[in-house]
Amino acid sequence: MKVALFGAGRIGKVHAASIRMDRRCELVAVTDVMSDAANALAAEYCIAARQADDILADTSIDAILVASSTNTHADLIERGIAAGKAVFCEKPIDLDLERALRVKKAVAAAGRPVMMGFNRRFDPNFSALREAFVAGEIGKGELLAVTSYDPAPPPVSYIKVSGGLFRDMMIHDFDMCAWLFGMPETVTATGSCLVDKEIGAAGDIDTAVVVLGYADGRIATILNSRRAVYGYDQRVEMLGSDGMLEAQNVAENTVAKSTTAGVVSAKPVYFFLERYMRAYAIEWSRFVDSVVDGAPLAATVDDGVNALALAEAANISFAESRRVAITAAMTGH
Amino acid sequence: MKVALFGAGRIGKVHAASIRMDRRCELVAVTDVMSDAANALAAEYCIAARQADDILADTSIDAILVASSTNTHADLIERGIAAGKAVFCEKPIDLDLERALRVKKAVAAAGRPVMMGFNRRFDPNFSALREAFVAGEIGKGELLAVTSYDPAPPPVSYIKVSGGLFRDMMIHDFDMCAWLFGMPETVTATGSCLVDKEIGAAGDIDTAVVVLGYADGRIATILNSRRAVYGYDQRVEMLGSDGMLEAQNVAENTVAKSTTAGVVSAKPVYFFLERYMRAYAIEWSRFVDSVVDGAPLAATVDDGVNALALAEAANISFAESRRVAITAAMTGH
Amino acid sequence: MKVALFGAGRIGKVHAASIRMDRRCELVAVTDVMSDAANALAAEYCIAARQADDILADTSIDAILVASSTNTHADLIERGIAAGKAVFCEKPIDLDLERALRVKKAVAAAGRPVMMGFNRRFDPNFSALREAFVAGEIGKGELLAVTSYDPAPPPVSYIKVSGGLFRDMMIHDFDMCAWLFGMPETVTATGSCLVDKEIGAAGDIDTAVVVLGYADGRIATILNSRRAVYGYDQRVEMLGSDGMLEAQNVAENTVAKSTTAGVVSAKPVYFFLERYMRAYAIEWSRFVDSVVDGAPLAATVDDGVNALALAEAANISFAESRRVAITAAMTGH
Amino acid sequence: MKVALFGAGRIGKVHAASIRMDRRCELVAVTDVMSDAANALAAEYCIAARQADDILADTSIDAILVASSTNTHADLIERGIAAGKAVFCEKPIDLDLERALRVKKAVAAAGRPVMMGFNRRFDPNFSALREAFVAGEIGKGELLAVTSYDPAPPPVSYIKVSGGLFRDMMIHDFDMCAWLFGMPETVTATGSCLVDKEIGAAGDIDTAVVVLGYADGRIATILNSRRAVYGYDQRVEMLGSDGMLEAQNVAENTVAKSTTAGVVSAKPVYFFLERYMRAYAIEWSRFVDSVVDGAPLAATVDDGVNALALAEAANISFAESRRVAITAAMTGH
Repeated sequence: MKVALFGAGRIGKVHAASIRMDRRCELVAVTDVMSDAANALAAEYCIAARQADDILADTSIDAILVASSTNTHADLIERGIAAGKAVFCEKPIDLDLERALRVKKAVAAAGRPVMMGFNRRFDPNFSALREAFVAGEIGKGELLAVTSYDPAPPPVSYIKVSGGLFRDMMIHDFDMCAWLFGMPETVTATGSCLVDKEIGAAGDIDTAVVVLGYADGRIATILNSRRAVYGYDQRVEMLGSDGMLEAQNVAENTVAKSTTAGVVSAKPVYFFLERYMRAYAIEWSRFVDSVVDGAPLAATVDDGVNALALAEAANISFAESRRVAITAAMTGH
Repeated sequence: MKVALFGAGRIGKVHAASIRMDRRCELVAVTDVMSDAANALAAEYCIAARQADDILADTSIDAILVASSTNTHADLIERGIAAGKAVFCEKPIDLDLERALRVKKAVAAAGRPVMMGFNRRFDPNFSALREAFVAGEIGKGELLAVTSYDPAPPPVSYIKVSGGLFRDMMIHDFDMCAWLFGMPETVTATGSCLVDKEIGAAGDIDTAVVVLGYADGRIATILNSRRAVYGYDQRVEMLGSDGMLEAQNVAENTVAKSTTAGVVSAKPVYFFLERYMRAYAIEWSRFVDSVVDGAPLAATVDDGVNALALAEAANISFAESRRVAITAAMTGH
Repeated sequence: MKVALFGAGRIGKVHAASIRMDRRCELVAVTDVMSDAANALAAEYCIAARQADDILADTSIDAILVASSTNTHADLIERGIAAGKAVFCEKPIDLDLERALRVKKAVAAAGRPVMMGFNRRFDPNFSALREAFVAGEIGKGELLAVTSYDPAPPPVSYIKVSGGLFRDMMIHDFDMCAWLFGMPETVTATGSCLVDKEIGAAGDIDTAVVVLGYADGRIATILNSRRAVYGYDQRVEMLGSDGMLEAQNVAENTVAKSTTAGVVSAKPVYFFLERYMRAYAIEWSRFVDSVVDGAPLAATVDDGVNALALAEAANISFAESRRVAITAAMTGH
Repeated sequence: MKVALFGAGRIGKVHAASIRMDRRCELVAVTDVMSDAANALAAEYCIAARQADDILADTSIDAILVASSTNTHADLIERGIAAGKAVFCEKPIDLDLERALRVKKAVAAAGRPVMMGFNRRFDPNFSALREAFVAGEIGKGELLAVTSYDPAPPPVSYIKVSGGLFRDMMIHDFDMCAWLFGMPETVTATGSCLVDKEIGAAGDIDTAVVVLGYADGRIATILNSRRAVYGYDQRVEMLGSDGMLEAQNVAENTVAKSTTAGVVSAKPVYFFLERYMRAYAIEWSRFVDSVVDGAPLAATVDDGVNALALAEAANISFAESRRVAITAAMTGH
């Protein structure tokens, strides 16, 4: 399977390594609007840095991996499938829900495999939690609590183009809830600016709590903060009728030091590149399973639309201080 | 300090043992509408089972400990202070907020020490968390998450007279939030009946999530369930600007067994009598500190009113599916 | 059951509280060569401080609890049983193995219940480990590792009369091994003075490792240090054919603090009074079970002799740098 | 840096992947007495499968990685350095201490970098423990306890050519002790056959405890078993004058499940390939640091000789049931 990479930035490099690790794939081209970045990556992998149009027109290329900036995602998915290619695209589809819904239609019509890069679904810890749940080990799910804190806020320049906390950061947690509990009926959002006043000045929040209500009475909560000084805090906890499941953090190492000051263990690993390194390799491998072997897609464009609809509802709930119902129109059903 | 005990039931017995353990106290009388219970406890402690009126009229008695049924609390507090006694009263003051507000006024006027039995404030784990927080070890508080699940629901007969989940069960968690973060500005409640349909038939819920919004942007969440099959789940977690604090569960023992099935550790201790046994002894001792040494009360009638006001707001929020603001009228300020 | 207490020091006070907690007992007298100590304890419990001879001659007293200095143990056991009393005696029987063997004979002849205060057998964690092992949960035992560190060394004045590390400190760990794995065939001891040079100057060691070899190939290790600055370190670990069991330390509380410095948890509780507080109450209750209900003794004089024989063998092994076999003569079989 | 690989078996494949991951290296050739294995690995890496002599004679090759069978190690180290190549060699140098001592002399004379593959030194957990110790975080080291259990015994056919438990399995733990505490003065070994009678019939043991005595009084213990049904148990614990350090196991994932049966966490990862995967990559990278940048070797032939001398002493100690002193002759000093 010949693959071309769109985007040679930080996350593009991670994906390039994943492609190389899967023996069924060959990375054959890279493109980036920053030609230096594209050339550097191309040199390292002994491949060509090419233009996007050129790649899309090259019928020998089977799949494209979209890791370019968010505003290019929707177009590249549509152009990729139009060119007959399988597409792996970083989340989100787009910051605009309407645009994402049009992509959803296009993908449904084209019938080519398009997978969204919801990396957490492939984290071995969250996978193990979900497997235990699906296997019925804690009975029927009742309460779901997602804790998701970044180690430090991004620069305000990033915040300004990010689409806001709900679409940029909590989108992963919305997908986590949808993956574990399905789509909720209502969204109630609370948020504040506690970490960095400039984030507030830019019209965004850095601390938020969302409650998702399900038709059958299940409830999920999501806690987000742009800052946890001890590292990337990524935990999921689920109460069921027969027990409780927790996926705890991954620590830097397993050393414990006992002194008069207490017992000190290592912090969680620093950020997503450390925490989800294995997840990135696994998600790519699962995409190849789908393209090569026809395995079901592990994260679809529908999933991308759903997460975006929850973010949109959270934005409304936060702005209007009220509970917001998810409508069929929001998710394109 | 001579003490009389009102209520010889399960929690009354716990308090009797606490009184005996504090060398500054002498338990001199017990009363209970169930005379068998009163007599049994009296026999064990070689004291007299007496009538309530008689106890209140006995000027040699310095303090009363009210562990009788909820509907007697308000009267006994008022009668106790009127008789010049110090009063330790189990939570809640009353199921009715108006009635509790009248008690608050009476207590303020009387100037006798009245302490509410919010046992969790005296749990060594929650105390240690609060001390670390107050000492500034994690900077400014931002997010607070209280998880509080009972091991099994009470009988529906109890549910019917309980005042409902928010006043009966979550009242402790409201106090925990108020103790750690102070009084919030808004309350948003979500609830369901997932554990036992008969609870729903009785007009109550058994699963709930409440979000508390603070004036300065801090946010607290409370998760409640009437059932956690693995035991009493009582945890508190707080994110601050400089770190995070967690008070985890207390396990039955420290044994871990590693086999092909995984690493198995002991469950949390079963319920409140096991978990808060030490807290009960400590809270009584703290009350004696106040009565004997004039130490500040560790949990006041105002605290009791505040918790009840939050429960009342949660009831309204749940009934009307909306965010409810805490008003000065609700808390008697 | 009327009980008299010999010894009103630190451990005597602990036992007095245990006696009071068991409703089947009444503490009726105390004696101590330090009459002030005896009087203080007597005053607190509203009992009489009496002379030892007087107590032993008082036929209304059913049992004596020996918590006086080690050099009185053997005599008091013998005199107690001669006077027809049940005896609970703190470890060790005596520092001299020959003397202990004579006590063993006297006890066997007298037929009165005599229980040795091996407190760790009653620690809920070690009990749970043993129960799981006896229930076959890890199959056949193979390796046993006992870690036992005191928080700080005692004064050298104590060391000088202690009988040395193996008889004073490791005696508990020898009993732990015998309790879990039975009596070994060989003892190999290594020791050093690393903590306090004055301990070495007094002819003792403060750090030691003993390996016990069993007839069927099982092996046990004991690690001792007179100093662990982080608190009382008391752990047991057992590998079996079907798994592994660990009894871990008991922490001061369950709070974890995550900051840039790592995740800090509470230390182990400070020393034996904190760690074994519950064990002291349980061991006394088990003794009463034996006296009142005829339940089997949970720690016998034979157990006391066995532990002492292992200490004696360790002394020889350490002095002569060789493996020492346990003989029938050593244990009185 | 051009590298040739000797040995295309399981561990050879791991090393091939490590070579590929380090961008300073190029894997250019592989050899194996099993030509199928060599060809398969060669095909995967698009390199040549060649003869050993041919590789050694090829002056364009800078380094060889020896992952062939143990009996080839000594010869290949000697031939490699004679051919001017840097050598990375899997442990042990040889099963025969005399032979290893000859290699040591040859390496000292040749002045080429030769590194031994003691993988555990590069495990991030053990590294973190050692760094904390070296940084003085627990003061002066006193007691060291290494627990090292394999998940399941190898086939008896392997046992027969393995050199025995002390040289085949405990060699890693001897190196761990030497790495952390330096070379001891005495070795005392105890061992049994508890896991598999056929191992005993083959003249070997499967369960062992070794005590290492240091000149300054420090003591180390090593516990080995060929079977821990719950997975690869690899822990190190060190008591120091100011605290204690533990490197605990690495679990398969961070999920905890609480049910009526207790709290179940994941087992340790299965065996060395899983546990030390990162260590293999790191050790190779450290070797390249030495060859390319002249960094000090992280594990030398002297370290290999030392570990072998400890194994030899353990064999004597076990055979003769006595403490054995390490002599200068044993380590070639």
